Amino acid sequence: VGSKGIESARPRGARALIILLTPGAGSAQRAAVARALRELGVEAEEVRLGARHALVVERPEAAPPAESLARIDGVERVIPLAPRAPLAAGTLRTGGGVAIAGAVFGGGHVGVIAGPCTIEDAASLRDIAARVAAAGAVCLRGGVFKVRTSPHSYQGGGLAALRELAGVAREVGLPFLTELTDPRQVEDVAGLVDGIQIGARHMQNFPLLVEAGRTGKPILLKRHMAADVDEWLLAAEYVLATGNQRVILCERGLKSGERHVRYLLDVGVVPYLKRRVGLPVIVDPSHAAGDWRLVPPLARAAVAAGADGLIVEVHPRPEATRSDALQALPPDAFLRLMDDVRALAAMDGRSVQPARAGERSAVGI
Amino acid sequence: VGSKGIESARPRGARALIILLTPGAGSAQRAAVARALRELGVEAEEVRLGARHALVVERPEAAPPAESLARIDGVERVIPLAPRAPLAAGTLRTGGGVAIAGAVFGGGHVGVIAGPCTIEDAASLRDIAARVAAAGAVCLRGGVFKVRTSPHSYQGGGLAALRELAGVAREVGLPFLTELTDPRQVEDVAGLVDGIQIGARHMQNFPLLVEAGRTGKPILLKRHMAADVDEWLLAAEYVLATGNQRVILCERGLKSGERHVRYLLDVGVVPYLKRRVGLPVIVDPSHAAGDWRLVPPLARAAVAAGADGLIVEVHPRPEATRSDALQALPPDAFLRLMDDVRALAAMDGRSVQPARAGERSAVGI
Amino acid sequence: VGSKGIESARPRGARALIILLTPGAGSAQRAAVARALRELGVEAEEVRLGARHALVVERPEAAPPAESLARIDGVERVIPLAPRAPLAAGTLRTGGGVAIAGAVFGGGHVGVIAGPCTIEDAASLRDIAARVAAAGAVCLRGGVFKVRTSPHSYQGGGLAALRELAGVAREVGLPFLTELTDPRQVEDVAGLVDGIQIGARHMQNFPLLVEAGRTGKPILLKRHMAADVDEWLLAAEYVLATGNQRVILCERGLKSGERHVRYLLDVGVVPYLKRRVGLPVIVDPSHAAGDWRLVPPLARAAVAAGADGLIVEVHPRPEATRSDALQALPPDAFLRLMDDVRALAAMDGRSVQPARAGERSAVGI
Amino acid sequence: VGSKGIESARPRGARALIILLTPGAGSAQRAAVARALRELGVEAEEVRLGARHALVVERPEAAPPAESLARIDGVERVIPLAPRAPLAAGTLRTGGGVAIAGAVFGGGHVGVIAGPCTIEDAASLRDIAARVAAAGAVCLRGGVFKVRTSPHSYQGGGLAALRELAGVAREVGLPFLTELTDPRQVEDVAGLVDGIQIGARHMQNFPLLVEAGRTGKPILLKRHMAADVDEWLLAAEYVLATGNQRVILCERGLKSGERHVRYLLDVGVVPYLKRRVGLPVIVDPSHAAGDWRLVPPLARAAVAAGADGLIVEVHPRPEATRSDALQALPPDAFLRLMDDVRALAAMDGRSVQPARAGERSAVGI
Repeated sequence: VGSKGIESARPRGARALIILLTPGAGSAQRAAVARALRELGVEAEEVRLGARHALVVERPEAAPPAESLARIDGVERVIPLAPRAPLAAGTLRTGGGVAIAGAVFGGGHVGVIAGPCTIEDAASLRDIAARVAAAGAVCLRGGVFKVRTSPHSYQGGGLAALRELAGVAREVGLPFLTELTDPRQVEDVAGLVDGIQIGARHMQNFPLLVEAGRTGKPILLKRHMAADVDEWLLAAEYVLATGNQRVILCERGLKSGERHVRYLLDVGVVPYLKRRVGLPVIVDPSHAAGDWRLVPPLARAAVAAGADGLIVEVHPRPEATRSDALQALPPDAFLRLMDDVRALAAMDGRSVQPARAGERSAVGI
Repeated sequence: VGSKGIESARPRGARALIILLTPGAGSAQRAAVARALRELGVEAEEVRLGARHALVVERPEAAPPAESLARIDGVERVIPLAPRAPLAAGTLRTGGGVAIAGAVFGGGHVGVIAGPCTIEDAASLRDIAARVAAAGAVCLRGGVFKVRTSPHSYQGGGLAALRELAGVAREVGLPFLTELTDPRQVEDVAGLVDGIQIGARHMQNFPLLVEAGRTGKPILLKRHMAADVDEWLLAAEYVLATGNQRVILCERGLKSGERHVRYLLDVGVVPYLKRRVGLPVIVDPSHAAGDWRLVPPLARAAVAAGADGLIVEVHPRPEATRSDALQALPPDAFLRLMDDVRALAAMDGRSVQPARAGERSAVGI
Repeated sequence: VGSKGIESARPRGARALIILLTPGAGSAQRAAVARALRELGVEAEEVRLGARHALVVERPEAAPPAESLARIDGVERVIPLAPRAPLAAGTLRTGGGVAIAGAVFGGGHVGVIAGPCTIEDAASLRDIAARVAAAGAVCLRGGVFKVRTSPHSYQGGGLAALRELAGVAREVGLPFLTELTDPRQVEDVAGLVDGIQIGARHMQNFPLLVEAGRTGKPILLKRHMAADVDEWLLAAEYVLATGNQRVILCERGLKSGERHVRYLLDVGVVPYLKRRVGLPVIVDPSHAAGDWRLVPPLARAAVAAGADGLIVEVHPRPEATRSDALQALPPDAFLRLMDDVRALAAMDGRSVQPARAGERSAVGI
Repeated sequence: VGSKGIESARPRGARALIILLTPGAGSAQRAAVARALRELGVEAEEVRLGARHALVVERPEAAPPAESLARIDGVERVIPLAPRAPLAAGTLRTGGGVAIAGAVFGGGHVGVIAGPCTIEDAASLRDIAARVAAAGAVCLRGGVFKVRTSPHSYQGGGLAALRELAGVAREVGLPFLTELTDPRQVEDVAGLVDGIQIGARHMQNFPLLVEAGRTGKPILLKRHMAADVDEWLLAAEYVLATGNQRVILCERGLKSGERHVRYLLDVGVVPYLKRRVGLPVIVDPSHAAGDWRLVPPLARAAVAAGADGLIVEVHPRPEATRSDALQALPPDAFLRLMDDVRALAAMDGRSVQPARAGERSAVGI
């Protein structure tokens, strides 16, 4: 994991540190701070800010981090000017859409991923897959390595279930993805799947991110329910630093004190991210809502705010499922939702159709 | 402030308390709990729940509150079945839209309130008012009694500024509202304004809510940035308990650890509230975003999620304003936003036009 | 409400604004920003920060606020160097303890305020007052104007209850305070009480703060359950700006998603504030815990972290109370807690005894 | 991962589900719900709760989870009575202290772990280790597999650094622990270390928890900065389910909107957990504070609230470190802190001395 070559693309001064000295720092104190910096191998230039003084470090790469420098006596605070996730920031120039085996997210395409929470039996999986494909979903989802808060809950069907999912996806003609939870799974699974999902609870499982990134497969990176944007983009940075540019960001709601929704959907992060990165941003209204009746309005809100896609849990018989029953959307409600998504996408000149094979290069992937 | 007459409308059993006893509570302990309840004037019936025992209180009105009963030895927990805000819950049956002097929110109408944060000078106010009216806003906003975090910030123009706002509103033919912050303001102001705004920081200023409610004017009740839904509905309950049914709820974003938006817009609360109350729910994207570039997508998300309206800050020269400059939308961006709002409202068969005078009774107000 | 005279005490440069220009801003763009500033009446000096440029505003008092200046084209961000609450910051030099009629908080004294949540009947009030006085409390508390989330909950006994509380306080020889909730109460109440409590939900009720401050009585200012430190100190600033320096800050727990405590006690704010202000800081473990069994350990933690006092709810028969039963400490547990408080205070050379009359001047109040 | 044998220990009825039907559910609707349950293989008994009806499921083990049952028409809500983390709950009966190679936490012993954030060079490590041992720390800490938010930050020294740490620990005669971040590290490391730390960001990395648990080594399980207590105890449950009972819980502060501390230390969770589980609970004041000057008061608060130990970052030259400089305590401040810890522990009749070899069995480990 490295960041070679990224520095040259940034404008001069973009990465400087401003070391603000305490008010009233006299020349002796300023010299002492400069000396302490030199001992740490840091070159700094003194500047005057009105009645205050500061030291500017143009090349902080080899220096101790900003918070270490803040421990030097006479320093009031250190203000870093550099972006914290330069590879992610760089996608703003280069980014278009990202495709999961022909299903395109971003670059004018609104892609909808749908399927059951967990792969439980082949018959109901085939039924759901056929229905979501008919409704216009472009990618299938389904969990086989589950992240369950309790060890006493159902843990998923593992590799056998994954093969079943792969078979059904082929039958209905959709690509699919599944969540990985352990770097040891990556080798076995990489050949089978079209995309890899990193779940919210594993957003900062950096060894997993690195292994998943190295497969070159598209990575759907969910935001942790307590992650701020910088933490999320720095998790994406771990994948980007492997050389894999195919990252799809997925907002799925934030933990809060509220009880009317399971998680608070941060719909504002969608337009915010559009200003900071070029990666596609999709939304998971199911986990945010935790209540199927709120899934369609949240999904509509996400697309109206500019989301490049959705990932939705669909199940025809939620009372019999082993996980996430409250948020599972009945297939007919999903069908109506897809009509709304098409209408909303059209308002902005966007489409929900998957790119045809020939178009893949058009979105740069 | 009282709740006379509301009890009769609720189905039997809706307000019961279930007092769950500790596992293994024997007959002597059960009798002791029952005796403690009788001494507090509480009648309870013992029921068996499988291997557990509970006491059911059918009429808890005269009893100490549930948390007091939980202090009795042998009680594991007390589960109240009653809704906490019965007047607000009752609006689910009766509610339609609410009008501010002909500007209708709800009942099929999406109403947009717009204007500057603060009334500063007559010329710019008149300019903004004319532009937002032309763009399709149905109500004017403007602050004269400001709630400023710091005593060293500009505190607003007071009654003189309010008279100016009233004059400009009359000129452009729009109703208007302003925020009140002190129960002592109510008498002076009630005759001048078309609607009263209760700001987020005053959502639990109960003396103010009661005074404002008693004017009979429409009350725009903003949600505190840390209020859960029950707290918000109970604040509305204070207004409803004065006999004033004209409450418009306004979501404006929740405080969080995030820094990319000023407050986290809880867009999911819109469809959630539609299931619990009949009061109109509008959204303030300006204070949530804290950044004018995020206001249009958040506004669109709100309407797509079913909001009955918006309240938006608009200013043509934000760099010269004394408050909330970062979120002020330029008038031309507001014009484009109104086109989007009309298109989104039409998707659901709703309209953004104000009700004509003759229609007011149709929405029950 | 003003801040006259405070500026002169601050060192030069302490209040400057640094206006950082976008990377790569050329001389034409820099000139345009400077011109825009001049049109707003703002004088600025250009400085170079390595490869970047900035404008320094030495006297931002008359300028639009920082966020308005951030709307000027070519500005990346505005960094204010001034403290936001200068009067509160100034107490760091002047502060010692604050006394409520002889009960001292701070300056080496740990003061404990105790009493029932609500004044309900004279007999139980007299019983509690006598017991907490005997245990070592230095001030009595009791609510008569209650802030109840629901209009259907008990609203308090009003002025009649306040007179009862005053009488009992006199009998047991303790000063007392009560919470005010409405600026219209201040005149009636100011002559009766020894101190005024501003509750968490009214922390930003600025008209109330100003009226309460003007009485000159000691003000116990609770932190809102969602207020950050700056918001809290700026609320104190409203009181200080009336000329009343007798402010006691009270931490009472923050709202969070956690359910094991009612509010999350921010024990770290105690030592943090000691570095920023000279005002005494006390802690309310009762409202934070929401469970009487957690009150003693939280109270001990607060004193061990340096709190200048506690405010604790005590009741011998919580199952019969009309509010806050779960957190009411039985009198014998309060007695044991006071032993711990004395031992902890002694560890730091502090005492829990109230100042004798002759000592009052020693703490400057 | 299983829970065999735990059921028999729980009292009858402790694990029941109460399925509350909607108010006014008639006999036909009740029968329909019962029928739906039978089709899912769930046996239920109907009970009357005053005017309401409910179904009680005594043996919900084989049934779909509660939230699935809540999707059945006619069900208002499902109230589970079972504890969610039964193995953790069971430690309340069995628990005493837990030892890391003779360093005891709990059971009357307050254990302090100290050391640098990261193992950087042998000389400074040896210096720190000698000083913290002399001050009374009972266990050494040091990171070699770092969890860094950014891929561009220093990632730790790996196995080579771990061997260095092991050597220094042996020299100074203290046991040590280090954080693991990847299940693939476990095999290599298990033979080297005295204890394994699971960091906050990996609290729900269940494959890692299972591998670490299976080593039988003591597991220091940090609470995620956004985890509620149930999530934390369920993470401990994953370790306990491997048969490893040597779990030490470590509170390290919660994410919040506050900026005056890095994380909000939840000091109340210490006494709360003492009522729910028998596992030792220690506190990390360093990561919570994010500022070394706040570390001693937070540490004192933790011990005063009943914590069984502390884990503290110590460094003599923080300005030269590659991580966490702001919170590193200078060795002399650590020395003074240990005096306070001893005094606070003594107040409760507890000691900070490590158990001698012969005492290990006394704490059951």
